[in-house]
Amino acid sequence: MLHPDAEQIELSLVLAALSDPTRLSIIRQLAEDGEAMCRRLDFGSKSNLSYHFAKLREAGVTRTRIEGTARHISLRREDLDARFPGLLDSVIKAAASYPRLTTEADVTDGA
Amino acid sequence: MLHPDAEQIELSLVLAALSDPTRLSIIRQLAEDGEAMCRRLDFGSKSNLSYHFAKLREAGVTRTRIEGTARHISLRREDLDARFPGLLDSVIKAAASYPRLTTEADVTDGA
Repeated sequence: MLHPDAEQIELSLVLAALSDPTRLSIIRQLAEDGEAMCRRLDFGSKSNLSYHFAKLREAGVTRTRIEGTARHISLRREDLDARFPGLLDSVIKAAASYPRLTTEADVTDGA
Repeated sequence: MLHPDAEQIELSLVLAALSDPTRLSIIRQLAEDGEAMCRRLDFGSKSNLSYHFAKLREAGVTRTRIEGTARHISLRREDLDARFPGLLDSVIKAAASYPRLTTEADVTDGA
């Protein structure tokens, strides 16, 4: 599963990954809830959401860790803050107007 | 010439407008030089650059003011700072690694 190294994270790709209302909702929710767990079943049946998670991961915005049949998704805060100081925080703040994902089953809090 | 009102500026469209290396170079240069003047002749002959300026303007990132045969382009700092505090500054800072536009004729400092 592709994750770019911290020093390979590219500003234009990060901005492109963030430039979508669904992905801004995901970012908002991850910022509020911390790591989220996506059951593989839910994940697999939500190909649209799966596409958005891949976009975020491939740009270096999120990290996905697989544990059994579950996927745990979290923001790469430290990496992003080091590369682009202030960017993620300002986007999270601005994304507060985007709705949380409607179906609780889509992303289940792993806590 | 379309400019969205400040309150109509949409985060996902701003991020999309910024998610391109050429447009990050433009942002960097506008931040460093202040308002830039594009002579209509240069502007018209650079259809690619013209496309990028339109993207930035339509998303609400820049303002274009026409004066005779020249176009003066500037960042909408106040509007963006009010809508998305910290976002523009963090992007400008991160865009410092993007090269200035190579041809001085492409964007001539209006000062």
